[in-house]
Amino acid sequence: MKFLCQQADFSSHLSLVGRAVSSKPTHPILINIKLVASEELQQVQLTGFDMNLGIQTSFGAEVNEGGEVALPAKLLNDIISRLPSGPITLEQGAANGSAASSVEVTVKSNTGSYRVRGTSTEEYPELPAADDAEVQQVPAIALIDGLRGALIACSQDETKPILTGVNFKLQGNKLMFAATDGHRLGVVETYTDSEGIEAETSETGLELTVPARALRELEKMIGSKPAVETIGLHLGSGQVTFEWMANQVPQQLTTRTIDGNYPDYQALIPQRFDRQVTLDRKQLVSGLERIAVLADQHNNLVKFSIDGTTQQLQLSVEAQDVGSGRETLAAQISGGDIEIAFNVRYLLEGLKTINTQEISINLNGTLEQVIFSPLGGVKTIYLVMPVQIRN
Amino acid sequence: MKFLCQQADFSSHLSLVGRAVSSKPTHPILINIKLVASEELQQVQLTGFDMNLGIQTSFGAEVNEGGEVALPAKLLNDIISRLPSGPITLEQGAANGSAASSVEVTVKSNTGSYRVRGTSTEEYPELPAADDAEVQQVPAIALIDGLRGALIACSQDETKPILTGVNFKLQGNKLMFAATDGHRLGVVETYTDSEGIEAETSETGLELTVPARALRELEKMIGSKPAVETIGLHLGSGQVTFEWMANQVPQQLTTRTIDGNYPDYQALIPQRFDRQVTLDRKQLVSGLERIAVLADQHNNLVKFSIDGTTQQLQLSVEAQDVGSGRETLAAQISGGDIEIAFNVRYLLEGLKTINTQEISINLNGTLEQVIFSPLGGVKTIYLVMPVQIRN
Repeated sequence: MKFLCQQADFSSHLSLVGRAVSSKPTHPILINIKLVASEELQQVQLTGFDMNLGIQTSFGAEVNEGGEVALPAKLLNDIISRLPSGPITLEQGAANGSAASSVEVTVKSNTGSYRVRGTSTEEYPELPAADDAEVQQVPAIALIDGLRGALIACSQDETKPILTGVNFKLQGNKLMFAATDGHRLGVVETYTDSEGIEAETSETGLELTVPARALRELEKMIGSKPAVETIGLHLGSGQVTFEWMANQVPQQLTTRTIDGNYPDYQALIPQRFDRQVTLDRKQLVSGLERIAVLADQHNNLVKFSIDGTTQQLQLSVEAQDVGSGRETLAAQISGGDIEIAFNVRYLLEGLKTINTQEISINLNGTLEQVIFSPLGGVKTIYLVMPVQIRN
Repeated sequence: MKFLCQQADFSSHLSLVGRAVSSKPTHPILINIKLVASEELQQVQLTGFDMNLGIQTSFGAEVNEGGEVALPAKLLNDIISRLPSGPITLEQGAANGSAASSVEVTVKSNTGSYRVRGTSTEEYPELPAADDAEVQQVPAIALIDGLRGALIACSQDETKPILTGVNFKLQGNKLMFAATDGHRLGVVETYTDSEGIEAETSETGLELTVPARALRELEKMIGSKPAVETIGLHLGSGQVTFEWMANQVPQQLTTRTIDGNYPDYQALIPQRFDRQVTLDRKQLVSGLERIAVLADQHNNLVKFSIDGTTQQLQLSVEAQDVGSGRETLAAQISGGDIEIAFNVRYLLEGLKTINTQEISINLNGTLEQVIFSPLGGVKTIYLVMPVQIRN
């Protein structure tokens, strides 16, 4: 194997697949990335895999001699990322005085030469194959919006695995993303065609629940690339593969799906509301951040006092023996006055995923579900259960 | 007490004195900062103190009613730093239903109002008074240069307290900074007058050793303010106070000094050298950073091969079972060829404090002291003991 490539390409793609490499893998071979140089394609393909999450990407290179090798992910990335920008070459040779499976590559830059011990790819597991019969094309923008709104509400509790993922539901051309940890629920409704018009089909679509960790990596990978337009979803048995083209080379992320039935979250969403508050999102976030300083000292509670007469929303906190605070914000308020309390951290986490200028808060009684939504933009629901106020 | 000030002033000065506040202080009162508002000066003075290090600073404010109070440092800073920029007021009132020493202040901004529980300043210790008889004026630039070159070599080992500090020596107008941890030594020679000419006095000057932690804070405080010109050194008994004016308000940092005799480091510095290597500092640092990736996997050793014929310095590393690497750098070399090894971390730490384009390496044999110095700039010595190469 021998190829010449640009340091910037090699380095950025290494750091990408490195996200799927565990520092303490279940199989020793998985501490490596798999590197495949193709003379035919004039591309180098990199794969990282931890048996749950797999990332595969390629970049263009002058490949003089094809071949493949498994190389320690972190070490290789640490060296390549520190090389000066410009051309570098990688060449494979047998390591002397070692096991038959042991190989060595030499990386050369302008001023330096590095030999790195690797191993043959024989034992490196293949990424689970995607079943091409079930491919769905999804606009990247819909996927990003959906992940942003749902990931925030995923549970961290591994004893209820189904809640640690995001639920995808495709019905006709409607694509729904949802996640809940029992205290809050994030739901985003998007469409698989760019028109965003709901098709009048009633066909049963697909549904799957995907681990949050894999989706956070997916969000980073496609979120930073405005050039990615469409993502292919390939469903396999207990597996899903997301596939797309980035700068004319294919990239993919493969992950197991989570078994089990996702709870019927639609039943949690109230169909009508007695009260509505509309206000500036940034002002609310800044106010909550200040309130949180004191709330964090006590029980994380922030009280909302909604006053239709003054058209003001007052946020307040009482932290015994420490202090107290209040913020007064202008708002458009309809429905009767009410006092209602929340965990301030849940609110801040949810409101930071919304990026419209204004948000609306829809609510009924002091102990009923409250919904925070962006005003305009993608249809997003962030449902939070209020907390009882003790006097 | 009642004053009006700008949020930006209050916030930046709070975070400054907060550096001297311990999160787990020996005396409960020291979790607070002391705030003194002076009607006469129209200034607010803040003090943070952990019994070793004290920081005091002031800022201009419209003081309507003078007074003083101790307030929880972190909580107050967390609130004030999150308030919107613009005017804020602070007013003191008695806390209801609490101990006599308990007080409460109300902070008001445009939209918010916060009450914070504090305590009277009765128990708050005074910063140790400086003895004005022994004041030395030192140019800020000389102090910054000295700290930068010496702090890097301080020991972390608390069993030899004297080595955890920087040694200051003033003789005539010559000011020397030194620190050593037994493996390396940093020495910087500066002058107390801007001319930089050595006065022909032989008077015995002062000598003191100051804890590295306090000096790191001092470096941050004065290093970021180009407006600071002169620093006053006030010597007390077992104490030293650094005092200066920043934006027309006084600031000071007080710290205990470290007892004991500092080792005679001058005796360690060779008077003549057989070999000299001059090269580009950034190229050396980048090369060492790449070599360090592999050296960190093994024993941290980098080998320098100095070749007068090719006028090249080769850096190399052998990390058994992992890989190997070498970098070849152009250099001006005089004296015989030699191979010599170092701890790569010591070199990187030292070379990063030097900011000239070129450095010179002066050395004798493979096991003798090696000196790295900037070419031009302030007289700085970074002495490193080499490591024996085993074959």
